[in-house]
Amino acid sequence: MNKDYDVIILGGGVAGYYSAKALRQGGRSVALIEKEALGGTALRWGALPVKRALDFFKERKGPREALLTSWQEDLRQLNFKLEENLLALGVDLYYGEGELLDAQRVKVGEESLKADYIIIATGTQATSIEGIEINRERIITHKEAIVLKDIPDSIVILGGNVEGVEFASLYAELGVRVTVVEREDKLLLGYDQDLVRPVEERLVEKGVNIIKGKAAQKAYVEDDKVTVLLEDESVIEGDKALVTLLRKPNFPKGIDRLNIDVDKDKIVVDENLRTGEKNIFAIGDINGIMGLANVAINQGLQVAEYILNKKKVGMNYGPLPRAVFTLPEIAGIGKQEEDLKGFKYKVGYCNFKDTFRGWARGIEEGFVKVLVDEEENILGIWQVGNLVSEYIGIISPLFNKGLKVEDLKNNLIIHPTLTEGILEAILNI
Amino acid sequence: MNKDYDVIILGGGVAGYYSAKALRQGGRSVALIEKEALGGTALRWGALPVKRALDFFKERKGPREALLTSWQEDLRQLNFKLEENLLALGVDLYYGEGELLDAQRVKVGEESLKADYIIIATGTQATSIEGIEINRERIITHKEAIVLKDIPDSIVILGGNVEGVEFASLYAELGVRVTVVEREDKLLLGYDQDLVRPVEERLVEKGVNIIKGKAAQKAYVEDDKVTVLLEDESVIEGDKALVTLLRKPNFPKGIDRLNIDVDKDKIVVDENLRTGEKNIFAIGDINGIMGLANVAINQGLQVAEYILNKKKVGMNYGPLPRAVFTLPEIAGIGKQEEDLKGFKYKVGYCNFKDTFRGWARGIEEGFVKVLVDEEENILGIWQVGNLVSEYIGIISPLFNKGLKVEDLKNNLIIHPTLTEGILEAILNI
Repeated sequence: MNKDYDVIILGGGVAGYYSAKALRQGGRSVALIEKEALGGTALRWGALPVKRALDFFKERKGPREALLTSWQEDLRQLNFKLEENLLALGVDLYYGEGELLDAQRVKVGEESLKADYIIIATGTQATSIEGIEINRERIITHKEAIVLKDIPDSIVILGGNVEGVEFASLYAELGVRVTVVEREDKLLLGYDQDLVRPVEERLVEKGVNIIKGKAAQKAYVEDDKVTVLLEDESVIEGDKALVTLLRKPNFPKGIDRLNIDVDKDKIVVDENLRTGEKNIFAIGDINGIMGLANVAINQGLQVAEYILNKKKVGMNYGPLPRAVFTLPEIAGIGKQEEDLKGFKYKVGYCNFKDTFRGWARGIEEGFVKVLVDEEENILGIWQVGNLVSEYIGIISPLFNKGLKVEDLKNNLIIHPTLTEGILEAILNI
Repeated sequence: MNKDYDVIILGGGVAGYYSAKALRQGGRSVALIEKEALGGTALRWGALPVKRALDFFKERKGPREALLTSWQEDLRQLNFKLEENLLALGVDLYYGEGELLDAQRVKVGEESLKADYIIIATGTQATSIEGIEINRERIITHKEAIVLKDIPDSIVILGGNVEGVEFASLYAELGVRVTVVEREDKLLLGYDQDLVRPVEERLVEKGVNIIKGKAAQKAYVEDDKVTVLLEDESVIEGDKALVTLLRKPNFPKGIDRLNIDVDKDKIVVDENLRTGEKNIFAIGDINGIMGLANVAINQGLQVAEYILNKKKVGMNYGPLPRAVFTLPEIAGIGKQEEDLKGFKYKVGYCNFKDTFRGWARGIEEGFVKVLVDEEENILGIWQVGNLVSEYIGIISPLFNKGLKVEDLKNNLIIHPTLTEGILEAILNI
């Protein structure tokens, strides 16, 4: 016999979690199916633990060695906390792998569930290239890298992208000998080099070996070492290799039985995040729109609104606030100079130490960068420094309303704050 | 003979300082006259040193005893830094008391200066009530309180307003026995009590004696003690008494010679911050519009724009972002429940510890409070906690564009941040 629900959600990452909460708060019955543990990549193996580790280096006391091992315990707590929140709202939780039977039925273990709506929020996972096989022992992904029992002496990180550089920062602070291999000729492709420089300088200071412009081609394990072969035939050795190159979608079982358009690396959705089956949605990383946790959270909330109130999905996919969780952090919104090649624009800077608050606090690091066009529209605001992901705050609705130089000149920033650096940067243009 | 300038500025506080910089950057010749030292109340004896001291308790190492004494040295550095910035731009600095001779001429020491425009930015100073006479030794103001050579054993703070509570927080953290006397029946009048409570609890925890609902009537010095007499004839003793009750304007000498409308506690200005003499402006605290440093900075910049480009003063005196620099901080913008008596509104809260970032960082303190009306307009966003004055960031232009619940639901906040607490608070309504 089928258990009947209004909505079945596949996957308890942030997309599924926020959706489940909002739907229950709206009075719908909800079943949430999770294969492994609640929280997904963002909360378990991504931005949150990375950020926690870097916060730890700055704020907490205690042995650094315990940092990654303790995350294992924290992950149990996290699952418990999320579970508690969902159960308190009356969400039915099923642990196991869900299988789509038809457009309204899902099987999980021995149970058969039925619902008017199904939300697929199964996310993605790390994958690799041919020649470099993830074995989760020596050749690992972020999932293993964040809960290592023993801190290795050395690690080779394949990929100088956001994930690779964040882990490089984390491991370097732990005292591990780190090598980063990036096929492009710069780290953090898509970020302006003046924003990347302080992060890169700190990595170099911490002894990180950064190899640019060379792709890794092969990796093999011998005894207790990983050997990585680069395209110029040079060789790098490490106790571990962390692969941050590619992601692949976690398609739910049985998806091929349904009228759902599946691409190589995503489930195709319409503007309301619906699949070809109009009662089945795909949200979060699995729909390939934007692999960001805040996008996933937002899609979870929006789909709930759609189901509850038939409110169209109104997310603005314009400028999104972004952060790189390294020491120091990079955070901001809007265009960078990389995006503005061929356009006319002006740039203003202010070092945090040149704000009054920064001077009084003895802050030496970090700055604000503002990009403005000829009509005085603010195109981008970027910051480098400690905690700047917080200082960027709720800037995103502002950007979508259109922000002009005059808006910042005619309005007030609390004095004395580092945030005044944004105004100073504009005055410095 | 007169030295000729485009603009003479009286007073080198933040209003005068920012005005001088902007006018020189716009190519005007500028004379700035400062009676004492650059920086004014905000930078020398107000928010900046208070904030610096509280930051120190959290971030820096070193003996607490050195904190206030070291500010004396920092004040020298500050003056030097501001002086350097102005001289680098080509501002002519005159130290001394300026005297208005007529609508275009100012005397300072032996010099006689002439200009097309004069900007009065002379600020205000602490004053007291009858019966309590400031002697700057035992009965002191913020000016003395921030640079004490010896930390007193005990202090009586007259006034539980923002200034009084900030100093109570500072001295309590220093280990001084503090008594706060407030005539109203609550601290921080105008702030909702749920925002004030964490600050008050911390004060009590630190041993602060808070006396509410009783006005101080007299204070007298005997030997090395100050005795304060309250209206119910009870008596409080301390090594020092800090008076935070009233401010009075620093009218420039010679102002009575001119067609300038002077009130008991301010210079009256029109919407472009002009006095009765249309080429003479009054900016910052002296015009009585709003005794806030960020307002003073803004008026300095706006008047410069007016003189440079005849651009009307466009400051929005609507919702202003505000902060109380205590441990923990209070910061926010817009309405509080105190302002909404008789109106319908909804409130949502989120504790920082219930955000993912807060949980991972082990943050136990602080919360977000959001006030919303029935049409889903956001009326106020308030936060209590460490560094919240930074997290409030550049929220003010947003408010003036009108912020709705939907704007926060349809836009993104960086994940994982404490700032996500704003969205959570809205979802919790």
